[in-house]
Amino acid sequence: MNESPEKDQRHRERMERKKAVVDEKIAQARDERGVLLVHSGNGKGKSSSAFGMVARALGHGMKVGVVQFIKGAASTGEEAFFRRFPEEVSYHVMGEGFTWETQDRQRDIAKAEAAWKVAAQLLADPDVGLVVLDELNIALKHGYLELDRVLADIQARPAMQHVVVTGRGAQPGMIEAADTVTEMSLVKHAFKAGIKAQKGVEF
Amino acid sequence: MNESPEKDQRHRERMERKKAVVDEKIAQARDERGVLLVHSGNGKGKSSSAFGMVARALGHGMKVGVVQFIKGAASTGEEAFFRRFPEEVSYHVMGEGFTWETQDRQRDIAKAEAAWKVAAQLLADPDVGLVVLDELNIALKHGYLELDRVLADIQARPAMQHVVVTGRGAQPGMIEAADTVTEMSLVKHAFKAGIKAQKGVEF
Repeated sequence: MNESPEKDQRHRERMERKKAVVDEKIAQARDERGVLLVHSGNGKGKSSSAFGMVARALGHGMKVGVVQFIKGAASTGEEAFFRRFPEEVSYHVMGEGFTWETQDRQRDIAKAEAAWKVAAQLLADPDVGLVVLDELNIALKHGYLELDRVLADIQARPAMQHVVVTGRGAQPGMIEAADTVTEMSLVKHAFKAGIKAQKGVEF
Repeated sequence: MNESPEKDQRHRERMERKKAVVDEKIAQARDERGVLLVHSGNGKGKSSSAFGMVARALGHGMKVGVVQFIKGAASTGEEAFFRRFPEEVSYHVMGEGFTWETQDRQRDIAKAEAAWKVAAQLLADPDVGLVVLDELNIALKHGYLELDRVLADIQARPAMQHVVVTGRGAQPGMIEAADTVTEMSLVKHAFKAGIKAQKGVEF
């Protein structure tokens, strides 16, 4: 398919130019330090992308801490899987279902407080290379936790520790503090077409 | 913080209404079948979200197949990690670096062909519950593989098998065929601020 020598040559030249640009950017990027990533938006993949990073970090021999702020009540596949590695992954499920399941604001606030205590310990531990704060944005959006205090603890973490914060509706202050922000947008969703939430995909 | 009874009551009512809407949607969604997910866009998290789904699927005792079409040359953390489970994860790295590293179109086409052969086998195996086709969109965008043939193999897969296709520049036909499409958009990137690609985050 499309095997003309001219096309191959054009492709080669285009890729050479692209390589030069990428190589220069890599040469310019010198800082070596822990980064704060935020995954927000209404689309899928905010949490699963964080859990993909957990796998990546484990592959590099790093220790990982996970705190789930909201979704916890449903036992999920990623929880079952990462709990297989208690030496490498410190896994904490602190929330109690989604907030529209609980309908009790004071209990949600107490849960969020308890979750933040655990998170603060992980954020103070230089042996932990990656901390996942899953659905923290939701707790902040509902005012269950104060943003200033959360950001202060995140910013005081060990220099080489990475942090991933997930959840829709990230606060402007969280986006401001982050090094990398990704917005996951829904283009199309099976659920809307009448397909049930599927094991291994949605939970 | 914000502990007035009125606010709690308003929150409760809002959450009750939301729960009713969500419960109804869940009741309407009855189909139980494998879904095709596409992760596209210029942001981070397309591949790591797929690898988070691998962890999720493994947590449910599913078998998983992974084919990496492009990125393979750099040994990544997720590869090192998931290769720990050869009974559960069939992991194939077929690409050879990014295309702007190889600058050889004919070799890229041959690699893509070889990768698709492996993918087609996984897509024909009813014991495999989840197939990750990582960076397939890139191979399709460059014309290394024909979309019609790729979609035919994906659509002929076992009824309960899930497939995740990643990579920027998803073809319209791929989006059309998908059940769920997520666009990952870059809001802010540490790389642009001069921070090196970090182990456990970028690779």
